[in-house]
Amino acid sequence: MVSKLKRVLIGRPMKNAEIEGEKLSKLKALAVLSSDALSSVAYGTEQILIVLMAAGFTAVWYSLPISLAVLGLLFILILSYRQTIFAYPGGGGAYIVAMDNLGTSTGLLAGGSLLVDYILTVAVSSSAGTDAITSAFPSLHEHRVAIALIMITVLTIMNLRGVTESASVLAIPVYLFVIAIVILILSGIVKALTGGIDAAAPAIGTSVSNVSLFLLLKAFSSGCSALTGVEAVSNAIPNFRKPAERNAAATLMMMGGILGFMFIGISLLAYWYGIAPDPKVTVVSQIAESTFGRGVLYYSIQGITALILFLAANTAYSAFPLLAFMLAKDKYMPHAFMVRGDRLGFSNGIIFLGVFSAILVASFKGNTENLIPLYAVGVFIPFTISQLGMMLRWLRLKPQGYAVKFVINMIGMLTTLSITLIFIITKFSQVWTVFLFLPAVMYIFHSINSHYMNIADQLRIDIKTEKPCIKGNTIVVPVAGVTRVVKQSLSYAKSMTDNVIAVYVGFDDESIERMEAKWEEWSPGVRLVTLRSSYRSIIRPVLKFIDTVEWKTAETDHVTVLIPQFITRHWWHNFLHNQSSLLLRAYLYNRKDVVIATVPYHLQR
Amino acid sequence: MVSKLKRVLIGRPMKNAEIEGEKLSKLKALAVLSSDALSSVAYGTEQILIVLMAAGFTAVWYSLPISLAVLGLLFILILSYRQTIFAYPGGGGAYIVAMDNLGTSTGLLAGGSLLVDYILTVAVSSSAGTDAITSAFPSLHEHRVAIALIMITVLTIMNLRGVTESASVLAIPVYLFVIAIVILILSGIVKALTGGIDAAAPAIGTSVSNVSLFLLLKAFSSGCSALTGVEAVSNAIPNFRKPAERNAAATLMMMGGILGFMFIGISLLAYWYGIAPDPKVTVVSQIAESTFGRGVLYYSIQGITALILFLAANTAYSAFPLLAFMLAKDKYMPHAFMVRGDRLGFSNGIIFLGVFSAILVASFKGNTENLIPLYAVGVFIPFTISQLGMMLRWLRLKPQGYAVKFVINMIGMLTTLSITLIFIITKFSQVWTVFLFLPAVMYIFHSINSHYMNIADQLRIDIKTEKPCIKGNTIVVPVAGVTRVVKQSLSYAKSMTDNVIAVYVGFDDESIERMEAKWEEWSPGVRLVTLRSSYRSIIRPVLKFIDTVEWKTAETDHVTVLIPQFITRHWWHNFLHNQSSLLLRAYLYNRKDVVIATVPYHLQR
Repeated sequence: MVSKLKRVLIGRPMKNAEIEGEKLSKLKALAVLSSDALSSVAYGTEQILIVLMAAGFTAVWYSLPISLAVLGLLFILILSYRQTIFAYPGGGGAYIVAMDNLGTSTGLLAGGSLLVDYILTVAVSSSAGTDAITSAFPSLHEHRVAIALIMITVLTIMNLRGVTESASVLAIPVYLFVIAIVILILSGIVKALTGGIDAAAPAIGTSVSNVSLFLLLKAFSSGCSALTGVEAVSNAIPNFRKPAERNAAATLMMMGGILGFMFIGISLLAYWYGIAPDPKVTVVSQIAESTFGRGVLYYSIQGITALILFLAANTAYSAFPLLAFMLAKDKYMPHAFMVRGDRLGFSNGIIFLGVFSAILVASFKGNTENLIPLYAVGVFIPFTISQLGMMLRWLRLKPQGYAVKFVINMIGMLTTLSITLIFIITKFSQVWTVFLFLPAVMYIFHSINSHYMNIADQLRIDIKTEKPCIKGNTIVVPVAGVTRVVKQSLSYAKSMTDNVIAVYVGFDDESIERMEAKWEEWSPGVRLVTLRSSYRSIIRPVLKFIDTVEWKTAETDHVTVLIPQFITRHWWHNFLHNQSSLLLRAYLYNRKDVVIATVPYHLQR
Repeated sequence: MVSKLKRVLIGRPMKNAEIEGEKLSKLKALAVLSSDALSSVAYGTEQILIVLMAAGFTAVWYSLPISLAVLGLLFILILSYRQTIFAYPGGGGAYIVAMDNLGTSTGLLAGGSLLVDYILTVAVSSSAGTDAITSAFPSLHEHRVAIALIMITVLTIMNLRGVTESASVLAIPVYLFVIAIVILILSGIVKALTGGIDAAAPAIGTSVSNVSLFLLLKAFSSGCSALTGVEAVSNAIPNFRKPAERNAAATLMMMGGILGFMFIGISLLAYWYGIAPDPKVTVVSQIAESTFGRGVLYYSIQGITALILFLAANTAYSAFPLLAFMLAKDKYMPHAFMVRGDRLGFSNGIIFLGVFSAILVASFKGNTENLIPLYAVGVFIPFTISQLGMMLRWLRLKPQGYAVKFVINMIGMLTTLSITLIFIITKFSQVWTVFLFLPAVMYIFHSINSHYMNIADQLRIDIKTEKPCIKGNTIVVPVAGVTRVVKQSLSYAKSMTDNVIAVYVGFDDESIERMEAKWEEWSPGVRLVTLRSSYRSIIRPVLKFIDTVEWKTAETDHVTVLIPQFITRHWWHNFLHNQSSLLLRAYLYNRKDVVIATVPYHLQR
């Protein structure tokens, strides 16, 4: 049943050799890995304008130089990550770079920060996508948590089906979004050049009395939220078709070009139209309305924008499992994250991401807006770390022309560091939890690592000297009566050794005498020891008896407890039987150094 | 932790020999077993008056002859159950009597009916007790479900602590209730005799135009709800001190006397005061107010009445586990109900009763009034069956003076049968579910029984011919690498037999070659078979391999799968390890006839 359902939802299992077919071409990779970054266009300009409006409408012209600065930062980040891709063709982004150049703790800080961030991405994006849906159909508003959870479930299942399949499905809305925004920008530019726009905005350079550097920095950092997601490509290099690093670099450049064009285009149009942010209508919506009026084109752009916001979550589904795999390979996360599922994806990472983001959505009841600053901080910390790591790498390796590369990374590092600090200072009330969960995550990583190291230590064998050695055998068989199950167990035990002891626990003298008489009549050739239990417990007397046997024979013999057990045909039949044998096994298993063997007797009816 | 909490709540475990100390004296038995019956006094007369009022206030005088009829029925029931106690000193009431005289199906009908009824008793009584509390403190009304559930929890824990302990606690309110009602009746009689009451009621014999036989029967059957609970004593004979049947009979007579006196006294006072039923004030409350005014005595009687209604549930806690024990002994209920807990009570029955009545209370949100008719039917069906069984017994055994005994039981049978039919006819909409759940319960009983019979059949051994026989041995050891755990497992396997095969599953040629090289270097003296898994499953290749081994050696050898396993120090460490070995064991356990052995390797850190 369960496995049939799994087949329908996930598809047939795939062979190891099929993994190359699951790799991404450049165009599919662009769709899968850029939805997070590209969707930022839908709100990036708006974030800048909202901050600037604090200084009045005349200050909105500052959005142009700030947008250019963001574009510059994007350019630097793209260059920097392009350098990273070629330096680390195995993939990994911030985690690998930091591990390699800045040491374990910094690496774990970057990795943990990103992992938590991907969970936030899914929670925030699916809530945002739901908001877009419920804006169109207000009657669905009361079901928003359910809708967000359904979306997360759909994304999880799509990703469990495999990377290429989800890429095929997801490519369409991503490219539709790009086409729609490009058409919007081009139409706007044509309209502007043909004089179709009455200049409404204050001229560039208009002096504004109360614009402070702090305000401009805050506007800049808010605009930088448009840059979240650009790191996804460098994390996902192993998902690319060969030559992976070349394809990844090309994809990164394409993404940077598209993102930059769309971002600066939207900012420009917003300035030309003299748009002020409105809590009820988004900037993109205002631009679309001014350009096309409220027609089919307007509604298409709105619909596609809603869809891309939701799909932004999918980027996290590509990046999280890969990063978790890398941490698991380094023994900082459970081995389970290294296992490839039936469809060759890292199923456990996908499921973990789905479950935790669903918990976040459910516990915030779908109102995840407050998580956005936290999410931005979570991205810019690893950005900064990654740039710093690259700087040290250049200084260490000193390849040809490393000075330029160093400067690029330094500018990037200083900018992303400033943005991180500005975020922390200006929005401390929303991001302070980062100071709790990052240390917590790092503590967990370290605990897991030291556990694995400990175990490896204890299991390691000296291949030269430690060989298996032969000992004698004593087998203890707890029996509850004279039945076929007992006969089968004794047959097995007697085949193994002559030292077989059957143990019977009785609650009163009468039952013990009856058992002894029956045993004598049967005479199976095995000694029966009877124990009397005053407290109606079977487990305790048996454990005590095994202690005695162990103490007598530990030097010479292996001690085996052989548990006769009949297996019912249906699991619910187990409610009809006292589970003493299971309980006994659990006790022995956890406490004793005896071998526990079960001779199953399968009932036919 | 859990076991410490258990000690605090339940008390220290008791020895088998202490069971005699847990038996009840007559006075304690009266308190434990009669609270259900005695509490009926609080509403019995009222039930009669409510029905009569349908024919107008002049009809209320009929309550006196009807009360006398109920008293007569009580007398017959007490006599009848007294006969049962001596006929069946092992206890059991309706179930045993029916099993013995009317056959299995009727016995199960009586037993199932009573078991369901005890669950209803707890649910209805705890809800009624809660209503009494929330009447006094209306602000608690919204927490009524929680209060009822807390009460059920307290009762369950008290009963898990043991019969005598709960008897000591519960005796006080029961006797207080008896004393309070007796004082009330005596004061009322004194007041009436001294002319303190203005006769307000219609004279006895006043002709009432619209009183039908149907109405009178309905009033009679409603009054009979005061008789629920009288069967408890005969069910619980094994709980009495020796001589159990003499003590039980004496307790039954005491209970009958007290119940009869209180019931007829209340009815008489109600008539003298000319009391009409009022949905907001109970009849007992009206009598108490008319007798004492709203003073300390009035409030004491109200408080004690509320308490006894709640404690009525405790009777079910004595009766249910014993009846379940009897059904389990006859293999109609799971063996678990035969196990005596730490405090020598049948803990599983007590817990089952608590859990199911709590579920009822929760699913009816505390409004269990509609269950009362169902509950009455559930009592009168076994009453009728029990009487019928006793009739057949007298006819069969023909002891001295059996004619009188036969007539007593016949009158009882006819009366209880009529009451059952009247209930079903007049309140069909509330009791129809009995026709669903009684067949369902009987079906479950029969299924359980046939399962046990089947298993006994399959496990039965011919003690003369079937003896253990000796075979060879092949041991398969799945290995994941060369570690201490593997060394320990191989040592064990080699001590058992020379036919040991280690199996390794690899996902690619590289890992397989590495393993083979390492094995050769180690040379533990055991053949290594390597399997390649295209689908990244370890279980499936191992299962297939074991199939092959079984097929080759089934005739001559036992096949053992020896699973090396390290045991982590803390259970949560298990999340860090792939549980392939547990999964493999579960598969083998359910599907194969191979012996499964675990060599545990306990990690120290």
